[in-house]
Order: sequence, then C-alpha cells, then structure tokens
Amino acid sequence: MKKRAKFLTNVTDVNKIYMRNVIKDGDIVVDATMGNGNDTKFLAELVGQNGFIYAFDVQPQALEETSRLLEKSGFTENVSLILDGHENILKHVDREVDFVIFNLGYLPRADHNVKTRPETTIKAVEGALSLLKQNGIMSIAMYTGHDGGKEERDMVYSYLEKLPQDEFSVMENIFVNQVNNPPQLLIVEKI
Amino acid sequence: MKKRAKFLTNVTDVNKIYMRNVIKDGDIVVDATMGNGNDTKFLAELVGQNGFIYAFDVQPQALEETSRLLEKSGFTENVSLILDGHENILKHVDREVDFVIFNLGYLPRADHNVKTRPETTIKAVEGALSLLKQNGIMSIAMYTGHDGGKEERDMVYSYLEKLPQDEFSVMENIFVNQVNNPPQLLIVEKI
Repeated sequence: MKKRAKFLTNVTDVNKIYMRNVIKDGDIVVDATMGNGNDTKFLAELVGQNGFIYAFDVQPQALEETSRLLEKSGFTENVSLILDGHENILKHVDREVDFVIFNLGYLPRADHNVKTRPETTIKAVEGALSLLKQNGIMSIAMYTGHDGGKEERDMVYSYLEKLPQDEFSVMENIFVNQVNNPPQLLIVEKI
Repeated sequence: MKKRAKFLTNVTDVNKIYMRNVIKDGDIVVDATMGNGNDTKFLAELVGQNGFIYAFDVQPQALEETSRLLEKSGFTENVSLILDGHENILKHVDREVDFVIFNLGYLPRADHNVKTRPETTIKAVEGALSLLKQNGIMSIAMYTGHDGGKEERDMVYSYLEKLPQDEFSVMENIFVNQVNNPPQLLIVEKI
C-alpha cells in the first residue's frame, strides 16, 4: 500500500500550503518577522526574479543569518533586508503588496526576551493591511506558550475579528484537539 | 498593476485548496455527501484513472445528477455511486482510504427537509475515521444557518475536538469576522 506523507504537521506547514497557493511569480511580498530567514527564503523562491521581498527584523543576527541563507540559495537580488521594527513598515514600503507574513513570538535559538510585542505588532498589522492590494493576503501565526504570548494573541485576535466583513475576510486555523496552547494561524484577505 | 484573484471566498474553496494538496493520482477517496456531484467530479479529476471514488447519497436525484455530470466530463470508470446513507459506509467500503469529504446540511435546489442528521452523521464520521490510512484526511464542512444545523455542528464538533491528539490532528477553519452563522471547515488527519 502506498504510504502517505504527514499533512497537518503544524501551523507553519499549513501556512506554506496557503503561501504556495496565494503567491505568484512577480509578487511583491513582506516578511514582517524575518527571524532565521526561512520564510524569507521560501518567499524568494515563490516570487522569483520578477518579484520583490521586504523583510524586517530588529536583530542584526537575523539579517546576518537571512543574508547567508539567501546567498547560499542564490536569492540575493530583489530582497531588501531591513534592520528596523515592523511597526515602521510604512517608512520602508511605499507600494502596494500582494502578501505579508507575520510569525509572532521570539526567534528560536536566540534571546527569548527579544520578541514581538502587542503594541508594535498591532501597528505593524495596521500598516500591512493598508499596503495590501485588493485580494492581497496577510497571514499571522500566533503562539501563546511564551510569556506575553497570550496577551499578544488576544490583542491581535480581537483587532482582526472586528475588521468589517465587507472589507476583509478573516479566517482562523487552529488545532482544536491539542492541549497546551496550540498555535493559531489567521489568514486575512483584503476585499 | 497585476490584478489578483479572490482567494478566501468560502469554506468550499478553502477546502479545494486542501484537496488539491492532499489528494494524489491513484488515491482511494470517499464523497460522503454526493449531492449535486460537484465534489465527486472534482475528486475524480484528482485521483485519475488509477484512483477510485465511493460516493454516497440517499436521494436518487443526487445519483442521477452526479452520473450525468461524470459522463459529461468523461469520468465514469473508477466511481461507485451508492444509494444509501453514509452511516452505512462500512457496508460498502472494505478497504483503507486516503481521503473522505463531508459537506453537511441539505442539497441546494432540492428538498430542504432531506438533510444530514446528527446521529447518522456521527456514525458516518466514526466509520470514515476507521477507514482512513495513516496520514489520511477527512474534511467536514458544517453549516449552521438551517434548522437543526447548529445541533449537528455542535455534536460533530464536540466529537472531533475530543479525539486523542496522538491519534488524530483536528484543525478548524472558520471566518471569524462574519456575522450570521459562518460555515466552518474541520480537517482531520489520522496520525
């Protein structure tokens, strides 16, 4: 009997399913939480030579790691690595975008005190929504296991669930039979 | 500026994204709620000549419509249209399957009194879960706008959210900023 690969591993992989279906060659995209650069690289592969990626992080370490990762994979053009908080997105991105990704929380294997925070996250989300093209997509993965994660999740969630349904579609993805604060993925489309 | 197509239209389309990513050529699949046959036809395209589809409905009208639809599209082999309630799934399907789809509620443009019901739905879901291969997927779209829909949704939801997380992953997809009983999609993977 043919063996099947695991499908629903975690919200990161579920998010990749959406990204593969949403992002096209030539798209303009934003990685609002660069971190170790894995998403930045994945986005670079999806948008190709005709696309463009803006990636944000406040940690020089993140830019170094991402830079190395992109060079190794041959994706160095069409990427702007920005050493600034994502709440300043509107200072750096001055055109409409197709897709924005947020992976909230802290960077694994780095200083866990450096993490996204509710106030700056909300400002970044507002900015990102204003930049989205019609039918552009924003995806936000939220983790509640770490200190402050639940407050951030609640603030982002209550902001997004109040978006008017004639302007935005907001879809939640969550593993409902997992104990211990399962991560949550929100997908927002501008209508 | 390049125009984007709408992405998050409704749970049916979100479900199609999953199906395209889950179902491979040669897969054995079950359409537990044949209805007008649209899903049956979509499944037939995905599994191809080497796959097989079992489709269930209690209404002769559903089998007639689906039969016509499949003939028009040239998919008549490798499909078994079964005039029986999906609660009897184990009487008709005697091998492991890769994927099962449920679209609960009633058939649009038909008698709205003929609809799925909590007790038989749960029995069908139990049967379907027992048939799934390792890493096989079940998807259930639930609608709560019609009479009895909310009871059915509650019963299915509380059954699925209690599935042990070391045996099944249960992911919910729901539009959180929609009023008026937005439909809900549950994706279950056997681990």
